This record gives sequence, structure tokens and C-alpha cells, in this order.
Amino acid sequence: MKVTSIKTLLADPKMLQEVRVSGWVRTFRSNRFISLNDGSTLQNLQCVVDFETLSEDVLKRITTGAALQLEGILVESQGKGQQVEVQVRHLTILGDAHPDRYPIQPKKHTMEFLREQAHLRVRTNTFGAVMRVRSALAFAVHQYFTTHGFFYFHAPIITGADAEGAGEMFRVTTLDPSDPPRTDTGEVDYREDFFGKQTNLTVSGQLEAEAYAMGLGKVYTFGPTFRAENSNTSRHLAEFWMIEPEMAFYDLDANMDLAEDFIQGVVRYVLEHCREDLEFLEKRLLEEEKGRPQAERSDMPLLEKLRFVTDQPFKRVTYTEAIEILRESKPNKKKKFQYPIEAWGADLQSEHERYLVEKHFKCPVILFNYPAQIKAFYMRLNEDGKTVRAMDILFPGIGEIVGGSQREERLEVLRQKMQQMGVDEEELWWYLDLRRFGTAVHSGFGLGFERLVQFVTGMGNIRDVIPFPRTPQNAEF
Amino acid sequence: MKVTSIKTLLADPKMLQEVRVSGWVRTFRSNRFISLNDGSTLQNLQCVVDFETLSEDVLKRITTGAALQLEGILVESQGKGQQVEVQVRHLTILGDAHPDRYPIQPKKHTMEFLREQAHLRVRTNTFGAVMRVRSALAFAVHQYFTTHGFFYFHAPIITGADAEGAGEMFRVTTLDPSDPPRTDTGEVDYREDFFGKQTNLTVSGQLEAEAYAMGLGKVYTFGPTFRAENSNTSRHLAEFWMIEPEMAFYDLDANMDLAEDFIQGVVRYVLEHCREDLEFLEKRLLEEEKGRPQAERSDMPLLEKLRFVTDQPFKRVTYTEAIEILRESKPNKKKKFQYPIEAWGADLQSEHERYLVEKHFKCPVILFNYPAQIKAFYMRLNEDGKTVRAMDILFPGIGEIVGGSQREERLEVLRQKMQQMGVDEEELWWYLDLRRFGTAVHSGFGLGFERLVQFVTGMGNIRDVIPFPRTPQNAEF
Repeated sequence: MKVTSIKTLLADPKMLQEVRVSGWVRTFRSNRFISLNDGSTLQNLQCVVDFETLSEDVLKRITTGAALQLEGILVESQGKGQQVEVQVRHLTILGDAHPDRYPIQPKKHTMEFLREQAHLRVRTNTFGAVMRVRSALAFAVHQYFTTHGFFYFHAPIITGADAEGAGEMFRVTTLDPSDPPRTDTGEVDYREDFFGKQTNLTVSGQLEAEAYAMGLGKVYTFGPTFRAENSNTSRHLAEFWMIEPEMAFYDLDANMDLAEDFIQGVVRYVLEHCREDLEFLEKRLLEEEKGRPQAERSDMPLLEKLRFVTDQPFKRVTYTEAIEILRESKPNKKKKFQYPIEAWGADLQSEHERYLVEKHFKCPVILFNYPAQIKAFYMRLNEDGKTVRAMDILFPGIGEIVGGSQREERLEVLRQKMQQMGVDEEELWWYLDLRRFGTAVHSGFGLGFERLVQFVTGMGNIRDVIPFPRTPQNAEF
Repeated sequence: MKVTSIKTLLADPKMLQEVRVSGWVRTFRSNRFISLNDGSTLQNLQCVVDFETLSEDVLKRITTGAALQLEGILVESQGKGQQVEVQVRHLTILGDAHPDRYPIQPKKHTMEFLREQAHLRVRTNTFGAVMRVRSALAFAVHQYFTTHGFFYFHAPIITGADAEGAGEMFRVTTLDPSDPPRTDTGEVDYREDFFGKQTNLTVSGQLEAEAYAMGLGKVYTFGPTFRAENSNTSRHLAEFWMIEPEMAFYDLDANMDLAEDFIQGVVRYVLEHCREDLEFLEKRLLEEEKGRPQAERSDMPLLEKLRFVTDQPFKRVTYTEAIEILRESKPNKKKKFQYPIEAWGADLQSEHERYLVEKHFKCPVILFNYPAQIKAFYMRLNEDGKTVRAMDILFPGIGEIVGGSQREERLEVLRQKMQQMGVDEEELWWYLDLRRFGTAVHSGFGLGFERLVQFVTGMGNIRDVIPFPRTPQNAEF
């Protein structure tokens, strides 16, 4: 007899059928009721054993975390809390979980404790739900782009470039760390390194994606990116997954339209496919926020917040308009901002973004047309000569979730920009080639996948939405 | 008017509609016929201009590789080779491609030359086709697993472990390479490195996937993995993408069933969705192999080979049976093998795998139950005490495409194995925990994505199926 997953079984329960299920004990009550979970769904399957037919020894081993295989008959449940249950005829204990030693007992654990047990935390309701939603979101991303004519493109992870300046990089090497080869002048001789030069872990696949967009039209990356920044915060990871679409013949408006439709599309997907997990996460969040002052609680329950995003258009505002709003705002006038907004050209801080999104507009906001000097070299200069066609999408509770732009397609303007900003032309000869040969208007954006998972699951710490987080001083597992 | 993709246009051509298209010139004949490609499909769109209404200057700039935007009327084509064409009313040159300088002229280029132009090679028919098929295959992978109840799991890329021994690793570091901090005894002090210890790029996400399978039931990874091996061959990359499913409650038989069904499923997907590109690649391969001796040519045309894989069951053979076949084989008796097969226990080389697949069975082969001593520590020991529940899938022309096993779920047997093979228990404390708490039968396998793309596209060199290949001495772009 084949093992049936609990999800399949509960989706279409056929009464009186013989079933075989495998899973892990969540609880065992009254020497009779096993709550079994197999990971396929949040829901447990109630399995009823007859303690008179089981030996004392076997009964003792049915503990939280133990792996079991059960065979029996599916029947309507007499008890509360479930529609069906299995009357167990045959029980095999596959693996024990000693109650004194198994860390994941059925009680409240702190998130910090569970991070130290990252190999076991997915066996809890919370992390099971988060990781199922994460998986569904990832699939939604691939499905959205595939059905919209994009090609999935794998950007290189190891790169010889250090050009984008998006952040500090990790070095990748096979040189003897203790005694590396040296040049005549005593410097480390990277010609003897694996790739014949210094290499790093990528901070973004955008530049390479541009090359592919200029051949395939519409492409996207979805892969790991890295920042070697010593930021020990609840918003930063040293290793995270990023989604970067890049489209030939798209201007900034088309880029904003796509970003908005994309986010709404993937959120709609999880609303349709992960209802149970999201309802659980909504309750969890309410519970967690109970103890907090009103001002620190979420404005809306989780599902309402998600529907709000899928159902409302995002508010589009120029940087210049945003500066005006901020300059005239109460917190600015009352000197409540840590960084007061005085003049056009100021870089927006997290406090400003949150004010705009959470207090002023009370909805997702797309800011666009930023001052050139606070944005990257590759962004398209506007005709005013001082702003670029950049756009950031700001989300309540999360801040910046998307950063994108129309790219500078004019060779001479790009070269000038690179010179001004100290970007090496020789290293990016191939990137300039894209402007030398068949250049065209094109655009793209980057979306940090973990930020999206945080938004959708309501988890407060980014370390709790990725299986094995990498942060300063931590590469365990 | 919105830009329509050429794929959309040709899929359902509505005559006499006004259209706007953008793309790159492939060829321009008789000052009249532009062959336009926008990457959405292999097919070009014929666009007819009236040279009498265009200035000499504009006509000169319509060269191979130039980016254009065209508006006109879609009509039935009078010429051969296409059903429809666009009568151009308005033409804008977006970007030039000077014929003396643009490297991708419409003539035969060597693969070596195109590798040096990896940022432009996707603009050729061959690489456009390969990369569209690659993208479709990747989507097929996600779709297969999602519809079969698996969760997508992101294994960490940076790892503190060096346990699996699957190959040489790249070190990841932020220490000053020229003058790293030292301990009292003069060794490099990794406590001061970013993660507080020595870290490497992952060679496999399997061990972490096992942790997730023991909570979510069925998971898979699909991410980059790395080998710092100095192999300059047409089969090896330093950076490649790997797919690793891992399933709780699956034994080796279920594992083999899944692997076979999975490969057949994704190949079927591309047969359905990439017909045009595959037909082009089939012709390309025939052309390429024309000059070769019969023995070095493919046995079947590409599409027939793919259908052969989807329509036939794979042959399952134990290692012991395979050794018998090889020992009695002609090349072995005639001493034609570089590594003669003498006794049970020999590791199989590529020449032996190819003999079994291409000469003896003439179909994909699953070899299983290998000698324990030539396989990894985590594989389930059989009751005979000398073989393990390993399986490799061998494909014609490619060799090993899948390697998998049932995992050793018994704590004491695993610890013994680790001791024998010199694997550090302390480093893998968490991996042993999976056997301490709720252990169960489980299995999984790994499939090198680029090998699969090679098989499906018929490309001979693995560097030509990944956008920007990473190999010894090469991390350009």
C-alpha cells in the first residue's frame, strides 16, 4: 500500500478507505489520540490507537517528534477539531524522539532558541507555515514571469567585477591563505588564483541580465546574492535571494507597471494557494503583538493587509513631491526625524520612507525620478540633467522592497557618468558593448525575496524567513 | 500603441492589423527586406520597407545587430519562407551596430569565438535557442515538483562545513589577503573572518535538504553549487546549477521511480513547449556532426533521442550485474578499456558507463547497490554489509546525469561510517540530530542541471549551455 500525504487525504477524504500514512507525532493524548504531521500541510491527522492492543513499551515511545508509520481505516471523527480520523490497525515506530532530549517540545519557544535549532525548527507550526509560503511564493515568481513571456536567466555567482558598488563583497579564492604567492612588489599574486584574477561573490546579476535582455528581450534572474556588511539587524542577511527582471524596450513607466502587477500577482497566488498557512500566521502575529503598545502593532490583520496590496493601485510620487511632503510634515517641523529634511537632494532614510507609506499615503508607494547624485551610474539621466529614471517601491512595515530604473542606453552619457563616479571602463568593456551595438531603451528592477516573504508572512526578523540564515559571525549548519 | 512580441504576433496573426514591434536586425536584403528578431522566438519577422521613402542615411544604418522600432500593417506575405510580413509605415533606429565593428555578423562563428563574446552570443540563433530551452527546462523542474507535493527549499550557498567530500571547495573570506590576522601560533585566525570561522562555497545542499525533508516531507533544492577543481574539460564547470530532491519515507525503489518519472516529465515539457528551438538544434547538430566519422555521430536525431527517453522505461541493473557484463564484454577481453574491469569493487569509469548505456543496453540505465567503499558516508548500508543503496542514472552521450541514494537513517551505523571515513562528527552534530530525533527512511538524488540542458539541446560543450561559464582561469563578465 502506498503512503498517502495528509494533505491529499484531507483534501478529499473517502470514508472507510484503508490508508497508510507516515509522519511525526505532534502530541499524544490519553494513550489514545496521536496528532500526526507529515509536513505536507499545517493540519495534523488525528490517529486513534487502541492502547489495549499495544504494548506498554510501544506506547511509551509514542512521544512528540517520533516518526511513525500507521495503517488503518479513515472514518468520520467523533471528537471536536477534526472531521476525520484514522482508526489505527497497525503502528510502526520508525524513529524515537526522547522527551528529555528532543528540543522541539510542544510549548512556546523563543525565536532566538529556534534559530539555534535551525535544522529542527521547520518541524514547528510557525516555520512549517513560513517555509511552505516561501516555496509557494517562489513558484508564483517563476509562473508569473513564464506566463508573461520572460526567460529565466542564471546570472553568474562568482564574478570578476567589483563595479556596481552595491555593497561590500566576499572574496572567493583557492590561494593558500597562510602563505599566498606574491608578485615582485610583494602584493598577493592573483594571477595564480583559481580564475587568474581576484574574484568576488555577486551583489547583483543586473548587468549580466541586461546583456541577456538585449538578446532575448525579457529575462529575469532569481538567485542568491551577497553583502559582506557587518549589519547585525533584523533586516539584513549576508546571503539572500534576489529577483531581477530586465526588459528591452521598456521605459520607466512600463517598468513601474510591471513591478506593481508582478507583486500583486504573486501575492494573489499565495492568497489562493496558502490560505491555511496564512490564517495561522495571521493569528500568530496577533498573538505576538498583543503585548506591544498600540503604535507598534500592525494596522491590519495579515490577510487584510495582503488583500489591500492586491486590490489597490500603488501610489506613484516623484522624489521632488515626496521631499515637499516630508519638508512640510509634522515630524520634520517638530524635529522628530533623526535626519531632518532640509533641501532637495537629500537621501531618504528609512524613517522618511515609513512616514510616507504608513502615515501620509497609507498604501504602497512608488517613488521615482530621484536626484542623479544619490543613485547608481547606470540609471537613465532625465532631460533635466539632474534627475534619473529611478524608482523605489516602499511597503508598509518593510520599507524599500523594490529598487529599479530605466537604464542609461546612450554610450557617451554612460561613459561620462562612469568617469564621474569612478567606475572602471576597462572592467566593464562588455557592458559598454551593449550600448555600442544595437542599444535600446531598457529597464529592470530588483526585489529582495526575503523582504517579500517577510511581508507576506508577517515575520518580524529576516532570519526567520530563510532556512539557514547567514549573518556576521554565523554560518552554522 | 503597445509593442507586441514577435512570438505573440506569429502565434495568432490578425491580418491588416496595425502593429508596433521592436527588435534587432538579423539581415537586410535588397534595401527592402528586414529580418527582425526580438528574442521572444527563434523566428524572425519579415518587415518590408519602401526604400523610396527612406533617406539614404537611414537605409545605411539598417545593419545586422541594429535595434529598430517599426510600425506598420500585418499582411500575408507574397514571398517564400514566411506566412506574414509587416509593411512598414514608420521606422525608428534605436541603436546602431556598425558593420565593421559588430562582432556577430551573419556568418559561421566558432564556439570558441562566441565564448569570448558571451555578452553578445545570445543574439545568435543557436544560443537564443539553447537559452530559451534552458529557461523552459528550469520552469519544468519547478512545475514538476510543485505539482507533485514538493516544497522548494533554498540551501545555504556559504557553508561552514567541509564534510561531504564531494570535491575541492572555494574559500569565502573578507580577511585582508595580504596580511591576515594570525593566532599566537602563526596560523591564519579565522575567528576574525566575517563568519567567525573558515567558510566555503557549497558543493551540495543535500545534507541541509535532509533536515528540511524531515520536517516538510518532500523538498527540493535548485541552486548554484561549486567545485574548485582544475578540470579544463567540456564536461566540467567551477560553478553550476544543481537540482536535489529529498524525500522522507522514500526508499531506494521509490527514489528511482521518482528520478525516472521526473526526467521523463521535464523532457516531455520541453518537447511540448520548445518544438521550434529543438528542431533548429537538431538540424544544427546534424550539420556539426557531418564532418565526423560515423562512430562519433549521434545514434539518433535529437528529437527522436528525447522521445526515446520519455517513452521507454530506464533499465535497472545492480552494480554486481554491471560488473559481470563489463568483465565479459569485448572491449574488456580485448583490453580496449583504459581501466580493465577485473574484480567486484572497481569504481566505474566514464568508458564503462558509456559501454553499458551506448553499446550494451542502448537506453538510459539506472545502476544501483554499489560497493560501500566507493560511495559517500551517508548512504544506507544494505543487509549484506558491503553494498549501499546508491543509484546512478547513466545517459547516452552524457554519462552520469543523476547520483542518488537512500540515506543511512540509523544513528549508530552512520556514526561508525563517519569514523571509518574520517568525517568530523562535531561539525555535523546537527546532521546526526536528524537520526537522534524522529529518524525515518529517506532518500534523494542530485541532478546537474547543465548536464540535462546538454542532453536536451545536443550541445557538446557544457560551457555553451550556461550564460557565463566559470572555469579555471576564466571569470570574465
